[in-house]
Order: sequence, then C-alpha cells, then structure tokens
Amino acid sequence: MPEPRAALERVRATRDEKLKEYKQLLSIPSVSALPEHADDVARNAVWLKDALTRIGMHGAEVIPTAGHPTVCAEWLGVPGQPTVLVYGHYDVQPVDPLDEWDSKPFEPTIIGDDLIARGSADMKGALWAFLVAVETLMRTDGMPVNLRFLLEGEEEIGSPNMLQFIEDHRDRLEADVVLNLDGGTHSPTQPAITYALRGLAYFQIEVNGPSHDLHSGVFGGSIHNPLQALCELIAGMHDEKNRVTLPGFYNAVRPLETEERKDIARLPHDDEAWRDMAGAPKLWGEEGYTTLERVGGRPALDINGIWGGFTGEGSKTVLPAKATAKLSMRLVPDQQPAAIREMLREYLLQNAPDTITWSVHEMAHGPGGVMDRHSTYMQAACDALEQTFGAKPIFKREGGSVPIVGHMQQQLGLDSIMVGFCLPDSGLHGPNEKQHLPTLLKGIEAYVRFLSLVGASS
Amino acid sequence: MPEPRAALERVRATRDEKLKEYKQLLSIPSVSALPEHADDVARNAVWLKDALTRIGMHGAEVIPTAGHPTVCAEWLGVPGQPTVLVYGHYDVQPVDPLDEWDSKPFEPTIIGDDLIARGSADMKGALWAFLVAVETLMRTDGMPVNLRFLLEGEEEIGSPNMLQFIEDHRDRLEADVVLNLDGGTHSPTQPAITYALRGLAYFQIEVNGPSHDLHSGVFGGSIHNPLQALCELIAGMHDEKNRVTLPGFYNAVRPLETEERKDIARLPHDDEAWRDMAGAPKLWGEEGYTTLERVGGRPALDINGIWGGFTGEGSKTVLPAKATAKLSMRLVPDQQPAAIREMLREYLLQNAPDTITWSVHEMAHGPGGVMDRHSTYMQAACDALEQTFGAKPIFKREGGSVPIVGHMQQQLGLDSIMVGFCLPDSGLHGPNEKQHLPTLLKGIEAYVRFLSLVGASS
Repeated sequence: MPEPRAALERVRATRDEKLKEYKQLLSIPSVSALPEHADDVARNAVWLKDALTRIGMHGAEVIPTAGHPTVCAEWLGVPGQPTVLVYGHYDVQPVDPLDEWDSKPFEPTIIGDDLIARGSADMKGALWAFLVAVETLMRTDGMPVNLRFLLEGEEEIGSPNMLQFIEDHRDRLEADVVLNLDGGTHSPTQPAITYALRGLAYFQIEVNGPSHDLHSGVFGGSIHNPLQALCELIAGMHDEKNRVTLPGFYNAVRPLETEERKDIARLPHDDEAWRDMAGAPKLWGEEGYTTLERVGGRPALDINGIWGGFTGEGSKTVLPAKATAKLSMRLVPDQQPAAIREMLREYLLQNAPDTITWSVHEMAHGPGGVMDRHSTYMQAACDALEQTFGAKPIFKREGGSVPIVGHMQQQLGLDSIMVGFCLPDSGLHGPNEKQHLPTLLKGIEAYVRFLSLVGASS
Repeated sequence: MPEPRAALERVRATRDEKLKEYKQLLSIPSVSALPEHADDVARNAVWLKDALTRIGMHGAEVIPTAGHPTVCAEWLGVPGQPTVLVYGHYDVQPVDPLDEWDSKPFEPTIIGDDLIARGSADMKGALWAFLVAVETLMRTDGMPVNLRFLLEGEEEIGSPNMLQFIEDHRDRLEADVVLNLDGGTHSPTQPAITYALRGLAYFQIEVNGPSHDLHSGVFGGSIHNPLQALCELIAGMHDEKNRVTLPGFYNAVRPLETEERKDIARLPHDDEAWRDMAGAPKLWGEEGYTTLERVGGRPALDINGIWGGFTGEGSKTVLPAKATAKLSMRLVPDQQPAAIREMLREYLLQNAPDTITWSVHEMAHGPGGVMDRHSTYMQAACDALEQTFGAKPIFKREGGSVPIVGHMQQQLGLDSIMVGFCLPDSGLHGPNEKQHLPTLLKGIEAYVRFLSLVGASS
C-alpha cells in the first residue's frame, strides 16, 4: 500500500493550528454526572455536529436520548469499500477535588509536552485526533473507507441509554468493524492495542436478621448477628486458592491459550511496580496465574462496599437488624452477567443459614469482550501503529470494562479495534489529567494510516 | 426475725402521698447524654441530696466529677451492724423518637396500673422506693443497718468517671455489701434476683490494603480487597459450633455448675417467645447450651458495626483502601477484658494475611460479675422478696453488662445484691417507658424487709 503522503504532510503542517480546536473542545465542561452541566454537554454535542459537517461528513445530527444526546454522522462515499463505525464519547468526569488541580480543569494548559485539562486524555484527545485525520484525508488523498460515527455523551456515567440507542438505530450503525477511540497506549515509543476487556456484573446483597436493632448484651449469643452472617457469606466466596466459589463460576470462562499466555508474559510489566502503584503490602490473586493474566484474562469478584450497625464514634452495643454489601464480578469471555446473577443466587441458596433472610439486587451489568487478534482490521491497526511509532504494538488484555465493546459484539456482531493515545500516567478521572502531546500528534498519523490500510485491504 | 410491722404499716398508709415525690423526681429531665440537659442533671443531684438529708442521712453531698456529679450520703448510727452501700443512678436516657410517646416523657402519666415517664422504670422508681423504705424505717422501727449511698449521674452514658470516683473515694464506700437498685424483676407475682452479669470488651478493627481507593476493574483480582479480608477475619471468629475461636477465649470461663444449669432450666422461659421478641427467623448460638445459658452464662462475640468502600446509591466500582468493624465480646466470670484484648491481637497475628495490615483499638471495657448465691445478704434479699410477693424469687443470669457491679467486686471486693422492680416489658430506653406501680409499691416493702433482715442476720 502506498503511504498517504499528502495527508501525512498536511497533518504535520497544520497541527499547531489544529491544536486550537482541541483546546476549544476541552474548554467545554461536558460533565455528564452533574445536572448543572447538562447545557454544556448539549453544547458539546452541537460543537461535534458542526465539526463533523465541516470536515465533510453527511447527516451529522444531535440525537436526543433519555439522558444526554448522542451525535451521529456518516460518509458513505466509497461503496464496496469497508465501513468503519467510529465510537467515542465527548462527556468527561467531574473535576473534584478541584483544589488538587494546579490549573483550571477547563482552561487547557500546556506544561512541557503535556496538555493539562479534564478530558484531555479521556477522551477528547483521541476524538480530536481522529477528526483531524479524517479532515486531512478528505482534503488530500481522499477517504478510502466509508465512515459512521457514534459519539456518546454518557460514557462516564455508565452509558445508561446506549443499549437502547443501538436497538433503535441499527440502520445508522451498519458497518464492518468498530474503531473505538477510547483506548490507551503503552508509552510514547511503544504502541499498544487492547484486544480484551472484562465485563461487569454488580449486585447489592442485604442480609436481615432480627426485625429491629437489639441490645447485644441481652441477645448476644442467642441470635445470629446479620453482620457476622454477611461476613461469613462473603468470606465463603473465595476458596484457599483465591478462586471464586459461586457454583459454576468458571464453567464458561474461555481458557487463556498458550500463545496468549506467552504474549502476556512478554508484555512490559513489573509486579513490584504494580504493587507500588496500588500501594498494597503485597500482591494477591488466583493461584496459577500471573498478575497480568489475573487482571486481563481471569474473572474476579470484589466487595465494593459494606455497611451495617453502628458506624459512629464510640461503642454502641447494638446487634443490628441488617447488613448490606455491594459486590461486583469482572467477567471474561464467555461469562454472561445474567448467568452470574443466577450463580450468586444459587450460592446464597446453598450457603445462607436459616437464621437470617437475604435478598439480591442487580445494580449494573455489561458483557466483556475479546477481539480476533488476527483479523484484517486488527492487522491494519497493528501496521498503522508500527509504521507510525517504529515499534510493533503490544497486545493487551485489560481488567476494566468498556461495556460498549461487549454491546457492539453482542448487538451488532462487530469487533472493536481499540486504538487511543493516552498514556498510563494520564491521571484519568483524577486531578491534573494530562495528554502527552507528541504521542497524540503521532496518533493523528496512525489514524490516517489505519484508514488507508483498511481501505487498501479490501 | 420479727416483721418491721410499724414500718410496713406506714408504707401502706403513706404511699399515695409519697407517689408525689416519685412524680416530682420524674419531672426532672436528667438526660446525661445531652449537653443541653446538664443543668437538669445537676438539679436532679441537688434534689437527691436534699431528699437524703430530709430522710435523716448524714453528710449528703453533690460531688463533682469530670462529667455529671455523684451524690453521696451516709448513716452510720448502728456501729457493729453491717454496712450496706446503696448504688443507683439518677440520670436517664434521651427520649427520642419523641413522636412515638403517647404522653410527654417528663410529665408522669398514670394509665391503669402503669406510671409512664422517662426514667420511671430505669431507674427512678427503685430509687424513690428505696428512699421511702429508708425514711419509713427511720421514723418507725429504726434503721437496723448502717447505710452509704453512691448515686451516679452518668450510668446511661457508660459511667466514664465512676472507676476514678471509686479510686478517689474509697473511704466513703467502705461497706459489707452493695445493694444495687438498678435491677428488674420477672413479673408482678414472681420476684427475681439477677446474680450474674456479663462483662464487656469492645474493639474497633481497621484493615488496610492499598494506600488509596483503586479501580476494581483495573486492579480487581490482583490486590486483596480489604473488605473481603475483613469479612474473612470476622467469619473466622466463630467455628462450626458457633464457638468463638480467639485463642484461649474459653480458658478462663467459669463452667456452669450442674446446680446452676438445673436452676436455669427451671426459669420461666420460652424459646419461641424469645425469638418473637427479637423478630429473628430462628434462634442461634453455641452448641450444647440453652438460650438462657447462652445469654447468661456463656460469653459471646458480636459485630456491632462495619463499614468501608462505596455505600451510596448506585454502583461505584471501587476496590477500597480500608475496611473497619466494631466488635464486642460479652464476658462471663472469670474472663478479663485485658486478656481478651490480647487474644484478639493474637487471633489477628495468627490469621491476618500479609496482603493487608491491621490495627485494633480498644473502645470500652468492663468486667462481668457473678455473686455468691448463698451469702447472708443474698439470703436476706431472697427472704424479703418471698415474704413480700409470696413466691420464692428466681435467680437469673443476665446477658447485659452493668460495669459498676464488676468494678465494685474488683475495686472494693464487694458483691452486689441486685434488687429492682421494673418488669421485662417496661420499654427501657424506648418510648412510653413505664413502671408497674403495684409491683413498685410492693418493692418498698421488700426493701424494708431486706434492711431488717440484714440487720437481724448479724
């Protein structure tokens, strides 16, 4: 495939000017979690619609949902060529604690190689970079593939309306592959592609004992304390090998292939650095797996919150009526959240004593996803990154969940190629969020190459 | 021993008039827990000092402490006769929830046989009844024993200054036996004597994992979740027989004697009614013991509170940095709180994994106590109750703690005879607290007889 020379030259020539648009995008405080920013989120959607129109996309539209709007657009100028569905989100996390920021979160500030602003890394940087790549191709070598855009305004609050949106707008989303811009890379010199994400199943368990709080002196020793009962149930959820004991929990787990395990072992990773990053006394996890395998390729069960009884100062001697915990499972292919819910119920049916009663509420769920590492599209992403950064990308499984990837796979049958350019130390969701600019500017070139390679592959 | 006829006749003749004093005492809102009632507590102390002086006691005094004052007095008019140290408290619990009261808590209201007011049963009723008994004996047959009074204003907030007070005023407290008025009886026709109380050791445990809250997607499965670790530690504190597993926990426990177990088995008790009172699905407890043995004669460990992680609405996927629990042990003779603290530390040393760190803070403690059921004084109480109520009293072990009883035993070497007249359904600490008046009026006679019998026994 010939290099898209004209496009790449134009990228390099115009990038300082283009940086202004990035800063403009970052100055809109599109915080989806806070109702007082609803107008800003809406304003950001319009900004995107206008930008998509300006770079030559067709039918750009701000589409209302039950929450914040979604922005769609398309360009179908090369019939017969592959269609890439581009997913991104334009909403950002809240900025608190504000006093830990060294500059104003919505006044983009450049220090050294970094641009500091809320959303700079997650993920207005990649969004902007991709728009620049598209504009440049449109104005130079030409766009070699068909494009559709799905830009969400609620990713940071758990995409509550996205599943419905996909259901309602299947016709707008027909494509051959998804390019998900919401990804990270490994270092300024080492590109990375995330090819697997864990799914999520999140529950709240309530254990009820006595009908009202009792005096622990009067009743203690004669009534099963619900806090104790809850602790006993939770403690039983892992065995001595730190495996999850819910009946059938591992039945659907797709085993890590030997080749994958070898690849994972080759990834740059240091257990001591990982432990340091967590600040924990020691690492922990399922026997027989490495840390990267545990977080990327194996499921996990975490207690996210627990409460009950007297939690104030001092020493109230209460035997409380109830105890509650929030817990969630990170799922790997092919574990299904609905099946996990039944396993949790079955575990409680088998293990809860008759001295208490219990209930389970499902709070959230999303499937995980693992992508074909050998598809044409993955190869295109791989080559584009290698040509741009001068190093073969590493393939990563990640512990977190991007439910949209699972939804795309389950609802539309589409794999997602995750290519983004924030670095691991970007401080996502925290104060002083930053984007390493040289990496992001290379990212524009990588997107240009990716689109060209996909176009050439068919 | 001749009946104290003149005194008993006078009790019956004057009781309606004396009831006014009871109501006056109940109209003082001596809530020790609430700073805004500090003046009321002080006013109540002065009321008692005046009452003690009026009935002929000497040296009545309001003695300041670091908190609310203690009232002392004495009458040492019969040298060579036994000295009875009378313990009581004049403070009361807060009244909330106020809207659940059918009358005003500090406007004593008689409905049927009950007098309804905060403190009517716990324990201004017994305090008033005993003062009437003393006054009557002083004015008729004569006081046959020496008396000392120790009336506390901080019992309802855990007696934070009482140990120091006993240390500082040993000379005022020299006696042969303690009469503790802070007790209950079984029914209007069945008197009871509590001869054993459980002690208390109360701790807060904190488990620390990562140095800061982590994203459970990124780290879940590779770091030991502190909530899980805490649950595992708590779950391990009981074995499959519901026995406490702290190393050596039962070593010092004085076994229930066969005779005691027989007595306990004869006590009026119904497991179904106990379960109903708790509102729990089923009773629970240490294998091999009955419910009354479990709460009265065996130690227990309860989790009083637990918290950590995300406890709000929704589903935050946090792997929290720490988890905390409050837990307490009810102790029986001869378990010592200081030894229990070491056992808890030893348990944690043996069982806490090196993936977390932990700390323990002692929050409160008090020894339990078991009284000689065969002493002259116990016999006097037994006879006084039988002569008054026409039924032999039952001997009860109680699950709760009255730390003062343990302190008296440990600091002064004195057994406490617990004789009070509130009924089990008095609603102590709750709304519409009530005292059954016919029982309390008989109580005056029982106190008269007790003092006479102690005087005659020497």
